[in-house]
Parts: sequence; structure tokens; C-alpha cells
Amino acid sequence: MKLTILGCYAATPRTLTSPTSQVLEICNHMFLIDCGEGTQVQLRKNKVKFSRINHIFISHLHGDHFFGLPGLISTFRLLGRKKELHIYGPKGIKEAISLLLKLGDSWTNYPLKFHELTSPEPQSIFEDEKVSVSTVPLDHRIYTNGFFFKEKPAERKLNVEAVAKYKINKAYFQNIKKGKDVQLEDGRTIPNTELSFDPPKPKSYAFCSDTGYYPEIVPLIKHVDVLYHESTFLDSDSKLSIKTKHATAKEAAKIAKLAAVGRLVLGHYSTRYKSIDLFREEAEAIFKNVELADDGKVFEF
Amino acid sequence: MKLTILGCYAATPRTLTSPTSQVLEICNHMFLIDCGEGTQVQLRKNKVKFSRINHIFISHLHGDHFFGLPGLISTFRLLGRKKELHIYGPKGIKEAISLLLKLGDSWTNYPLKFHELTSPEPQSIFEDEKVSVSTVPLDHRIYTNGFFFKEKPAERKLNVEAVAKYKINKAYFQNIKKGKDVQLEDGRTIPNTELSFDPPKPKSYAFCSDTGYYPEIVPLIKHVDVLYHESTFLDSDSKLSIKTKHATAKEAAKIAKLAAVGRLVLGHYSTRYKSIDLFREEAEAIFKNVELADDGKVFEF
Repeated sequence: MKLTILGCYAATPRTLTSPTSQVLEICNHMFLIDCGEGTQVQLRKNKVKFSRINHIFISHLHGDHFFGLPGLISTFRLLGRKKELHIYGPKGIKEAISLLLKLGDSWTNYPLKFHELTSPEPQSIFEDEKVSVSTVPLDHRIYTNGFFFKEKPAERKLNVEAVAKYKINKAYFQNIKKGKDVQLEDGRTIPNTELSFDPPKPKSYAFCSDTGYYPEIVPLIKHVDVLYHESTFLDSDSKLSIKTKHATAKEAAKIAKLAAVGRLVLGHYSTRYKSIDLFREEAEAIFKNVELADDGKVFEF
Repeated sequence: MKLTILGCYAATPRTLTSPTSQVLEICNHMFLIDCGEGTQVQLRKNKVKFSRINHIFISHLHGDHFFGLPGLISTFRLLGRKKELHIYGPKGIKEAISLLLKLGDSWTNYPLKFHELTSPEPQSIFEDEKVSVSTVPLDHRIYTNGFFFKEKPAERKLNVEAVAKYKINKAYFQNIKKGKDVQLEDGRTIPNTELSFDPPKPKSYAFCSDTGYYPEIVPLIKHVDVLYHESTFLDSDSKLSIKTKHATAKEAAKIAKLAAVGRLVLGHYSTRYKSIDLFREEAEAIFKNVELADDGKVFEF
């Protein structure tokens, strides 16, 4: 599981910081999460192959999370894309993109499929044989979803020595990988644990931005391996954070602790602070395993 | 008259090139012309004061000329703007921006005035005591206008020595600056040319992008001091240029020659060529005074 931060700063633009966008590589997918202005240039800078992006998840319709989407969709056309592109985001996203394409008398020469979200409840929005994606409804000024990405358990690994020892026929291997026991011809039952090894633990990632402090998400992200949680402000600016429905580093850490996550990645920093290390210091007082996102930073989990 | 090129490359984004946007400083105005994605970051990089921009001119609604506008409008709000902002562009621009603001439950805390354009004829769209702006209808795939910026003639300059010599009363000075002769008390008439100097010649600038080769614009831009004319392609790719309704460097130079302009600035280059010097070489064979736009380049005219 690899996470590339394309941008992780709050809205006010500066020369050297980018608004929210990130790429999650999981189970051979390359999921683009949010798409602030300039995302396509950030994709280039970080050498992400445009053609590998087939699913884009948009948390909410504030500009710093989606004003890069129209340009990216246009660029896909210029690059001769033919494959379907799936966009998941709040209702209205289809109307906005369609209007912008219409005004430019533009078109996409590839199928563009919108999956508009309206539910205030968590819901499954993508699933294949290896991974699932569901929403994590957040508490922001407008309708906003986080996203929970979860690998499905892989097949168990065959214990080659054990199956040889019991002379088990190949025909049983698929069942063994699925966790089933095997009955030998002499009547003995060999338990699956003797014939196979545990697969690698499925990994999971939760993206939660933008949101105020919202413990309601805890059951939805419980034990997630990596939680990206916004921390726009420090605790000293908690009045601002309440007013704008953003979170502080302290609050992000509280959520991480309550949900017993493996690791907390902070981001969506206001550009008012001198150093983003301040966010880490504040969060670490509550939760130990803290990482700081930064534009261009790559995490391998 | 100062022209800052924020971006001057055609649509396909690269790490180091920006789509169309430029700032024209003329008669204390700071006019923003087109606003491709990333314009606000380019404004920062080039240290242009956001607060000095009060008028934005959008040539057409292709993304590489206006996908930076929604973000810029949002940023003005974050920066606490109070002054009116005027946007001139094709019909539809108001609907697009309004929808994007509405979806984000955003607002502007300053008056945002749209001046939507639909006329296929040239028209005056801005005028004050010092400068006028009119449209230059172009020939592109969708409704597109160039813009012609023209200083008004300044007042004549008082010849301080001459008025002293004739002992002319201060009450006449304003008339002298306006070009009037003065009748002395002894009946003699002193011609204005003896009492004042010519003011500096009014300057003018024409922005013509995007467009195919379109000699119909020649009368509209005749004798302009500086013509920015797109040259997406070289003559060797004229088939492409005809198909996409863009111009070649050769065609831009032909227009410059026909209109007897002072100087030709080329831009809107396709990124397919190894060096933009090729554009200059091609144009100079037809028209001598050629400049190459480039991102971040500043021209003082």
C-alpha cells in the first residue's frame, strides 16, 4: 500500500504548497482522492501515470478539493484516453463537470461515469475481488465524505511441505487456500492450519478530510492501519476550527486514539503556522504513531 | 505599459509550463487576461498583488483559458476582498461560476459583476477617462474574443517657459492642455503649439488567442503597438492548425504584417516542439519585430 501526497495544505494558495489531492496504490489500483487545483501538474511532478487512474474519489465540493477535476478530465481526453473513468463525489459534481464541458463544446472520448453520493450513512461505493471502498460521512460545512479503503483477505498460503507429506492431491489445493480442512482416504482429517499459512493481514486506509472533531466516525475506522485525518489548526486556534468545522491536531490524535488506528497521518494544514512540526508535537502528546503529510511525500505501508 | 506572462502554453499540461494567463498594466490598471488552471499560483510566483486586479477578461471557455477562475474568485474571498470584481467573458461564464460557488455553499463577500459577451461584432466593453477596452472577435472552435486595450490621448504638456513669456494667467492652463489657442489682452492669438508640447503617444495592446488565421481582425488591430497573437503550431503542422482552428507562427506574422503592428509577441505554443525559438525563426521570415512570450517573462513597452 503506497500513498503519494500530491497536496495537503488548506485553501489559501501559496507558491510552494498545493491543495488536497493524493494517490493511494492498493491491490493494483491507483485511486485518486480529491483533486484540488493544480492536481494534474502535481501528478506529473510525482511521475504518476495518468493512464493508471480509473477511479477518482471527491470528498466534498469546496474548490480546494475539486477545482482540479475539470482540467484533469480534459487532459485525459487530450491524452487519448479510451478507458472508463469513474468519479465518486457529492451530488452536483456531474452537473458541474457536464456544464464546464458543454461550455467548452468539449467532450470526453472515453466513458465518464459519475457515482453521485447523497447518503448521510456510510455506504459501500466500490468493490472488486481484492478491495472495497466505503464512505465515512464527516462533519463539515457542506456534505462531505471520507473514504475507507480495505483490502479483502487474501487466500491462505499453501504449506507445500505439509501437502507433500500427506500426499494430498492438487485437486484439494484451492479448498485448502480457502481455509478448508482435508479428509484423507484413511479417514483422518487434517486441519487447515496444518496445511496452510496465514495470508498477509489485509491492509486498510481511511481518508478523513475535511471535518470537525467527529467521534461518530470512530466505529467506521476502528483499527484501520493508516488514518489520514485533517488537522487544519492547532489547539490554540480551536475557536477558528469550531467556526470553520475543521479539526485541530489534538482532535485528530484523539480520534486516532479512540479508533485505535495503526498510524495517524496529519494534513490539510493552514498555512498560518511557521512549521508543520508543531502539528506533530501537539498530536504526539495524545497518540504516539504520528506522521506528517507533505506535498510530494510518499508513504509505503 | 507592462505585460507579465503568467502562462503561454497550449493545453496539455507539463511540469514546467502553464496555460494561458497574463497581466497587462496600463494606466494604473492591472488587467488579468485569461485564467488557466494554476493562475493564482502564477500570480504569487510573479509577485502580482491580488488586490490590484479588478477586471478579468476571458477570451473563451476552453479549460486552459478559464479553469483557474473559480479558484481565484474563491481566493479573493479568503483574502478578505471587499472591492468589486468585474469579469468579462462569453455567455455561460456566470452560470458556471455561480454553480461552482453554490455547490460549495460558498459566496463572495465582495460584489462580483459579470459582463457576458455574445456579439460576433467588435464592441466596447470597458472605458474610463484613461483607457478603453474593446473585443476583437476571433475564429476558434467556440465563441472567442480577443481584446484591444488602448490608452486615451493624454493632455498636452504645458510649455512653462512660453506661458511665462506671454504672462498667461493660470486660468487658461487647463484649456491649453486641452489644445486650445490663447488670445492675449492685446488681441494677439498665440497658437497652442507654441504654448504646449505633444503628450506621449497613447499605447495600445491587442491580445488574440485562440484563433485560426483570420485576416478579418486586421482593421481592428491596425497599428497596435503590441500584438500578442497565438502560434500554437509551426507551418509544418498547418493541417493540425486548420483542423483545431489555431494559427501557425507564419500566420501570426502575416497578421502582424497586414496590420502593420509595432511588435508581435508569440505564444500559446504546443508543447510538441523542442524549442520555442523555432516559432521566432518562422515568424521573422515575414515580420521583423518578433518577441517570444514565456512563462514569467515581463515586457515593458
